[in-house]
Amino acid sequence: MTLADRWLLPDGVDEALPKQAAKIEHLRRTLLNLHESWGYQLVIPPLIEYLDSLLIGAGSDLEIETFKVIDQLTGRLMGIRADFTSQVARIDAHCLKNDGVERLSYCGSVLRTTPAGLDGTRSPIQLGAELYGHSGIESDLEILSLMLDTLTQAGLSKLVLDVGHIDVVRGVMAASGLTSEQETKIAALYRAKGLPELEAYLSTQSIDAQAKQWLLALPRLCGGVEVLVKAESILADVSESVSDALAQIRAVADVVATRFSAVGLHFDLSDMESYSYHTGLVFAAYVPGHGNAVARGGRYNYIGEVFGRSRPATGFSTDVKTLVSLVDVVVEDRSSVLAPATHNDALWQKIKSLRAEGYRVIQQLDQDTNASDFDFQLIAKGDDWELVKVN
Amino acid sequence: MTLADRWLLPDGVDEALPKQAAKIEHLRRTLLNLHESWGYQLVIPPLIEYLDSLLIGAGSDLEIETFKVIDQLTGRLMGIRADFTSQVARIDAHCLKNDGVERLSYCGSVLRTTPAGLDGTRSPIQLGAELYGHSGIESDLEILSLMLDTLTQAGLSKLVLDVGHIDVVRGVMAASGLTSEQETKIAALYRAKGLPELEAYLSTQSIDAQAKQWLLALPRLCGGVEVLVKAESILADVSESVSDALAQIRAVADVVATRFSAVGLHFDLSDMESYSYHTGLVFAAYVPGHGNAVARGGRYNYIGEVFGRSRPATGFSTDVKTLVSLVDVVVEDRSSVLAPATHNDALWQKIKSLRAEGYRVIQQLDQDTNASDFDFQLIAKGDDWELVKVN
Repeated sequence: MTLADRWLLPDGVDEALPKQAAKIEHLRRTLLNLHESWGYQLVIPPLIEYLDSLLIGAGSDLEIETFKVIDQLTGRLMGIRADFTSQVARIDAHCLKNDGVERLSYCGSVLRTTPAGLDGTRSPIQLGAELYGHSGIESDLEILSLMLDTLTQAGLSKLVLDVGHIDVVRGVMAASGLTSEQETKIAALYRAKGLPELEAYLSTQSIDAQAKQWLLALPRLCGGVEVLVKAESILADVSESVSDALAQIRAVADVVATRFSAVGLHFDLSDMESYSYHTGLVFAAYVPGHGNAVARGGRYNYIGEVFGRSRPATGFSTDVKTLVSLVDVVVEDRSSVLAPATHNDALWQKIKSLRAEGYRVIQQLDQDTNASDFDFQLIAKGDDWELVKVN
Repeated sequence: MTLADRWLLPDGVDEALPKQAAKIEHLRRTLLNLHESWGYQLVIPPLIEYLDSLLIGAGSDLEIETFKVIDQLTGRLMGIRADFTSQVARIDAHCLKNDGVERLSYCGSVLRTTPAGLDGTRSPIQLGAELYGHSGIESDLEILSLMLDTLTQAGLSKLVLDVGHIDVVRGVMAASGLTSEQETKIAALYRAKGLPELEAYLSTQSIDAQAKQWLLALPRLCGGVEVLVKAESILADVSESVSDALAQIRAVADVVATRFSAVGLHFDLSDMESYSYHTGLVFAAYVPGHGNAVARGGRYNYIGEVFGRSRPATGFSTDVKTLVSLVDVVVEDRSSVLAPATHNDALWQKIKSLRAEGYRVIQQLDQDTNASDFDFQLIAKGDDWELVKVN
């Protein structure tokens, strides 16, 4: 094995050297403080769990993404978390046992077997928040606002919010009286954004003409606020659930326009990205020049069911390392002091109090250290030590 | 699988619920700030690496403790870190390329295949500091002082520091002209603290009488400061390296007595705990009623050699979760405000500014929320919103 091999990190795995690490730590604290000011309480789930608990409600995508190891104590399979959501849901369902609203936040490393998206990372520092115990639009709006506040406080600008609602596609399909075979086929075509193929397919199927219009209209309902106006007219009579979904999307548009007027809005009413996992409003935030979403969220009711406690839930997450790569995090530096390495009690007391006051005090161990790299120097003056400005 | 099974975490793996998580986060920040004030720069090594890089210089103990997975991209073995030391050494050797002194700190989760010691944890939150590029006693004293300052700031009292030096045993063995077979046997007896067996064994060996005295004296040199005085007399003429080692231990005793006079001192001159890994002074801190060391450190020169850059090094580490379990971390709580969940621009602006000022503002989502649990309430007054004290 060559030296270069020893230095090499696996693809999609990276480390943060001092400058970047200081930025990550600074942003981490800023954002966790923000979440605290919103009433979200930090929890620290374990890095590893039995696989059965970890993959709850998450679908097979996450199973493939999860590194697995054998527990040498029990022989059971464990997984390194690839996501926090099921862990935090378990904590809400089992440990906290609060029947009312519960607001939880988290921040920590996750690992994925394969690099995700264009970032190509396998080791994000995931930060997020989850709200349990409330199913109304108010909690969707709270999580959405917290997500946008998080990104804004991180320093991101030119944000575009992509909004969808699972019940639009679901409601249109239900109202169209489709067979399950037809549903699967149409869902696949929505996913592939295959409009001509969709037209061709629908023309061969015996589906009500009105329903065909709805099904064909959906993938075209993709764009700015004008799309929402169109959808409200075209899908007005589909069903109550579709009208409710559109009203929720409208509420999001209103809240974003007043609270985050600089954030662009984009709607995609046939978006199938999180069709199997989410149960209501879904949203993702993008910035220009970065292909992946910088944050994602949405409603995922019933996730606690397998833990014996079905609870409405909505939440979002982002990656602190991605945020740091996109913004210029400014970390205020301490004033620096160079001190001799002599073992002297008065010197030690002086250094101790300077450190407590916020100075960075370094005791000079090698002769190469350059005093001119420091703001101050500690100089002996009789029995005392004096802080002298350098230069 | 039953519900209870799903809830169960693997042995030695735990999670932190809000109260404990707030304490861990608070202590983490306090201690990283402390390290920063000492000039130690934070680095964030990856959670996972190729096994070859991860197990450098660490010996086979760590290999057994490390969870291994296959990299699906390359087929190579990767390990989840069970310790930070080799990662930080790699960063010093390869990424920073500073020929002078480098001070680095870290804090993060590590995973171990089997529960360690009496704590039985497999998932500590390891926090530590490493100093590279200086081999004199000054850097040992700096790391030792930082370790004790860390534990003191964490709130631990009644600390006892256990001090040893690898070169005492090594020097005595070298001066005794032992065969390698004799060395191995005696080292094993030191490890087992088998004094009668040692006496019996030595009586059968043809070893110089003076050397036998030294070899027999070593395991008895275990106790308070009086041990050091005895050692200085009994081992005065062994070799320069033994005298140097004793002088270093004496320097530690002096520094602890002046800087940390409340810390008890204990010496164990035949301690073999880290014989294969460390290369000089070694130390560990204990508190009454807790069997495991709460922090450990010592010198481990040459660790960077396999990365192409042999550097003197000394460092220490502790577990934030253990510290939180031993002290009463007090986290100052924010003043809390209950606000309605209405979507209203003036209300939003008011809430936003209160959060920025440090209040925790929660919008009331369920009717069960009790205003009397809060310090303040936001009440509409005309077009404005007023902060009203509850009670």
